[in-house]
Amino acid sequence: MRYGLSCKKCGKQMAFKIRETKCSCGGTLLVEYDLEEAGWTLTKENLKERDTAMWRYRELLPIHKKENIISLGEGWTPLVRLHRAERTLPLQKLWVKREEQNPTGSFKSRGFSAAVSIAKEHNIQKVTVNSNGNAGSALAAYAGHAGMEAFIFLPQDCPGIIVEECKHYGAHTFLVDGLIHDAGKIIVDGEKEQGWYNVGTLKEPGRVEGKKTMGLELAEQLNWKFPDVIIYPTGGGSGIIGMWNAFQQLKQLGFIHGDFPRMVSIQEKGCQPIVNALESKEAFKPRTHGVRSSPTGMRVPSPPDGDLIVSILRQSGGTAIAVTKDEIQQGKAALGSYGISSSPEGAATWAGLIHLIDQGWIRPTDEVVLFNTSHALKYLPWNQHHLPVIRDYQEWVKLT
Amino acid sequence: MRYGLSCKKCGKQMAFKIRETKCSCGGTLLVEYDLEEAGWTLTKENLKERDTAMWRYRELLPIHKKENIISLGEGWTPLVRLHRAERTLPLQKLWVKREEQNPTGSFKSRGFSAAVSIAKEHNIQKVTVNSNGNAGSALAAYAGHAGMEAFIFLPQDCPGIIVEECKHYGAHTFLVDGLIHDAGKIIVDGEKEQGWYNVGTLKEPGRVEGKKTMGLELAEQLNWKFPDVIIYPTGGGSGIIGMWNAFQQLKQLGFIHGDFPRMVSIQEKGCQPIVNALESKEAFKPRTHGVRSSPTGMRVPSPPDGDLIVSILRQSGGTAIAVTKDEIQQGKAALGSYGISSSPEGAATWAGLIHLIDQGWIRPTDEVVLFNTSHALKYLPWNQHHLPVIRDYQEWVKLT
Repeated sequence: MRYGLSCKKCGKQMAFKIRETKCSCGGTLLVEYDLEEAGWTLTKENLKERDTAMWRYRELLPIHKKENIISLGEGWTPLVRLHRAERTLPLQKLWVKREEQNPTGSFKSRGFSAAVSIAKEHNIQKVTVNSNGNAGSALAAYAGHAGMEAFIFLPQDCPGIIVEECKHYGAHTFLVDGLIHDAGKIIVDGEKEQGWYNVGTLKEPGRVEGKKTMGLELAEQLNWKFPDVIIYPTGGGSGIIGMWNAFQQLKQLGFIHGDFPRMVSIQEKGCQPIVNALESKEAFKPRTHGVRSSPTGMRVPSPPDGDLIVSILRQSGGTAIAVTKDEIQQGKAALGSYGISSSPEGAATWAGLIHLIDQGWIRPTDEVVLFNTSHALKYLPWNQHHLPVIRDYQEWVKLT
Repeated sequence: MRYGLSCKKCGKQMAFKIRETKCSCGGTLLVEYDLEEAGWTLTKENLKERDTAMWRYRELLPIHKKENIISLGEGWTPLVRLHRAERTLPLQKLWVKREEQNPTGSFKSRGFSAAVSIAKEHNIQKVTVNSNGNAGSALAAYAGHAGMEAFIFLPQDCPGIIVEECKHYGAHTFLVDGLIHDAGKIIVDGEKEQGWYNVGTLKEPGRVEGKKTMGLELAEQLNWKFPDVIIYPTGGGSGIIGMWNAFQQLKQLGFIHGDFPRMVSIQEKGCQPIVNALESKEAFKPRTHGVRSSPTGMRVPSPPDGDLIVSILRQSGGTAIAVTKDEIQQGKAALGSYGISSSPEGAATWAGLIHLIDQGWIRPTDEVVLFNTSHALKYLPWNQHHLPVIRDYQEWVKLT
């Protein structure tokens, strides 16, 4: 398969490189494929015969040799309909894309399967990432599977279970006094000296391509249709960028017609650069001081290409909303009661959904997909439970 | 689809009932299907067109109406090859069946999808289970999705994160001073008075049928072949019973030929009733005192039908092994280093594998499948980490 890089801002095209992701104009370089060639083998019929993992879309992933693919069973996550919720909201069709069912318990598995495969194809031995948590544990797992050494830098208030998860996979794991961009600075300062390959957001070409498969899959699972609205928790934003790219490619391949979905970014109040930029109608301005939101994947004060995210939201007719910590708690309880292992990020999409229905922005006839990007398991405050201990049925009766 | 119950001991057949699981002879009743009728629609070709979830095998699951199926995206979990491990062991083909990628982070999702669907088909409102943890959270999730009330009884030393997981799904969750059978006694004492439907191991017909799909899937994922050896962590043992049943049904349907796999049960030293029974060559004897093993899914001193499990292991040419806590820790580290989120139960299968290779019981040419039944996430000691916090690259250099 032939592929190169293309600037999303000025359109400039160039050869594929694994360390170049910024154009001289300042725009972000994404992988561009020869879609005519891709279409020779990537057909709706052929897909039916393929493995149910994200590598089923291999023509649209930047790997030359199959033996370099590092796979732990990522992708093709369930799209679950919430019938009971539809009756209470009211909404005719509501799905949750269960990204927590990926191998590392989050959507980050996809990006790192692609990025680590690229690293393997280029004989890289040491990989590193700054992360709010789930990117770190995903890199740790994929590097482990590939036999590479991983160096993970996390903010010190990262949920403890995710810190332990990184160590479980044998990664060198470090806590940083600061936020995700402070952790990123350590990597930039050390990468040459240490011979690290930086797999941070938009620092290499693989992660956004891996995340693109969420969009490809969603369309295929809906029988080659787009939903009306996608609600997505947004931190670094490469999921939005990847999915939007997926939808363009599906149209160019002739797999799908009809309107693109309206893309909605959800952030938490206290760290809402995308929401602010969309509201201000000016160019994107990162602000790294005064951050007050929770340590989740959405806490990214300075996404690498905020302008690109905002332009996608606008182009799609979408929007962005900041929700409160309390609303996230309510969303967690609501999704939990429908049987979903909802992370704070996934719960935030529920909170956003409620706002948008209340505003009339989402209509009852809209088909809506929420992205639950990670397991509730990773964030449960399990050392806080104080349940009484019973001995027999009579004690239970007295208790209740 | 027509189905009834059949005794695995005396062969007696009877009508399908949802509360009868013991024959008058003492044997276990399992669901038996009209396989001729099943074969009209369940074909290898038809399967290719079906959803990748356990309900793809709907002809072999005891539900009449599709609208009663309670599904959260369970089954069709990845079967991941461990190439790097094969080179060090040596073993030519080693897979891990990643059951932790089920909706509730464990293989228990399958059994409860079936059991709660049956409950819905019979208009049941209140469901209850005694559990070492993962069965509890699975019932909580599926009952939540179905809109039923769930009552969960767990030993007081159940991992805290699993206790929180049950509460996350809105279940009434209780800790019991004792082990899983003590928790079971509370249910038996209260079920009539409270109108509870008891979904404990082998107390109803659904769970073992749901688990059966692990066997159906494994054969299909290996392109309708059996592996030589299956290594499975064993507590109540309904996974072994279910998979063995699956293999018989696949042979009767003509889907598969060749030898059955040798089934290996793994337990932890300190609670090893299956291992003891297999070694003693006498009838199975449960022993509920003197239990010293860890609070994992393997800690079931008195499985409901130990004789049936032992007879399956013997019939298959398999075996059973008890491993130590230290060996489980080593297994966790080994599987973790290959990128697998290994629970203690999954790690125990690795420990068993090493023993069986050392003994020469597993040969280098054997094709082996380990079952990782749950996520490492649920058992990580995250409140114990003591990582230093760094501020910049220079501090990192000093530290390392």
